[in-house]
Amino acid sequence: MAYELHYWPMIQGRGEFVRLALEQAGAEYVDVARLPHEEGGGIEAMMDRLEDEPLRPPFAPPFLRDGDRVIGQTAAILLYLGPRIGLVGESEADRIWTHQIQLTIADMVAETHDTHHPVGVGLYYEDQKPEALRRARDFRENRMPKFLGWFERVLVRNPAGPDHLVGAAISYADTSLFQLVEGLRYAFPHATARALDAVPRVAAHAARMAGQPRIASYLASERRRPFGEAGIFRRYPELDPA
Amino acid sequence: MAYELHYWPMIQGRGEFVRLALEQAGAEYVDVARLPHEEGGGIEAMMDRLEDEPLRPPFAPPFLRDGDRVIGQTAAILLYLGPRIGLVGESEADRIWTHQIQLTIADMVAETHDTHHPVGVGLYYEDQKPEALRRARDFRENRMPKFLGWFERVLVRNPAGPDHLVGAAISYADTSLFQLVEGLRYAFPHATARALDAVPRVAAHAARMAGQPRIASYLASERRRPFGEAGIFRRYPELDPA
Repeated sequence: MAYELHYWPMIQGRGEFVRLALEQAGAEYVDVARLPHEEGGGIEAMMDRLEDEPLRPPFAPPFLRDGDRVIGQTAAILLYLGPRIGLVGESEADRIWTHQIQLTIADMVAETHDTHHPVGVGLYYEDQKPEALRRARDFRENRMPKFLGWFERVLVRNPAGPDHLVGAAISYADTSLFQLVEGLRYAFPHATARALDAVPRVAAHAARMAGQPRIASYLASERRRPFGEAGIFRRYPELDPA
Repeated sequence: MAYELHYWPMIQGRGEFVRLALEQAGAEYVDVARLPHEEGGGIEAMMDRLEDEPLRPPFAPPFLRDGDRVIGQTAAILLYLGPRIGLVGESEADRIWTHQIQLTIADMVAETHDTHHPVGVGLYYEDQKPEALRRARDFRENRMPKFLGWFERVLVRNPAGPDHLVGAAISYADTSLFQLVEGLRYAFPHATARALDAVPRVAAHAARMAGQPRIASYLASERRRPFGEAGIFRRYPELDPA
């Protein structure tokens, strides 16, 4: 049976980390909220499902349904999917390490989001612009190089070589790092270009992932929504001076 | 062999979620950075270990060493420890659900931290006070009730009853929720008291956890550092009006 992914239909957002893993694995899945209303699609139906989930309601989208199991939290979804779709190593050590990398990617994603929403998620960007300018500066100058430097170190120290984050095969950490770098390039083209100069293996990793046949085919499809100013990665030129 | 926990020695911080789980389980562990310098303690030794970790270097403290395994990221440490110290159910479904709750706790912890550091972790609170006032207000009025309401729902919907988050026994999600509520009470005494009125099972859960013999004995020991204004949960009265 196909996996059911439930996420905001119009944006990439956090759901994109799950979509990319499913696409790379060639797994069958339905992006439920993108279906027509008559087939159970739409945001309202998704939010009803979230509230009505009788025993183990997720806190927020994305959530995954696999038969009678419902799992929320992006990293937990990937933890669950990894072994099932062949995107994580066999050993417990590899699985925990892959998850540890995913959680660090999630930390950077959250900090990226906060560059345009430093005061609160309930307010518009326009209502927190002075704060965003300060936060984005700290992000560009300190946090981005620190995080990307860590991913570089992980690639360098992988005994199987710097083509993958863990071992010699693609894991969900690889698809997630790819999405993170893509998002940073969209939101902070200048700062990201500068930062990637210092981490050549991260840049090469992103290029290699983009060339994976299934990823490339997904990126060219209509299933891949464009980046935009309703998602995590937003391009506000004032937050990324040349 | 005792687990080695590596974390900033003077604060509770994120390491406290690991300490509480180890304490509740009665597991043997060494809080390495709190040892005297001659025995490998101290912050410098910890940061050297982090950098020098040859293959799988954690991004930041806390990290756990178990023999030759080194694991970073609070939630990944608890994922690893849970089955070993008896603080998670046996089934995969229970394990994923417990982890999903832990990740949601981690999200709220991060948002709590950002109330006093909305602009950047590299700046002092005093240099981001106007932003902190706005962010804390959004946190008190919107985010805190939303998160606590979700924990209440999880307790209510637990088929084994509202004494635990998952099933009929204490898991690391329970020790973590306890620490989160303790921290909120310290940082936002007024707002938290008001919010807890609306979630009686969360309040009762925290009281029950505080009465667990091992937790009670830990809280009374010198191993429990006090809350303070260098940690995640900080009491700045201006962020919590009566």
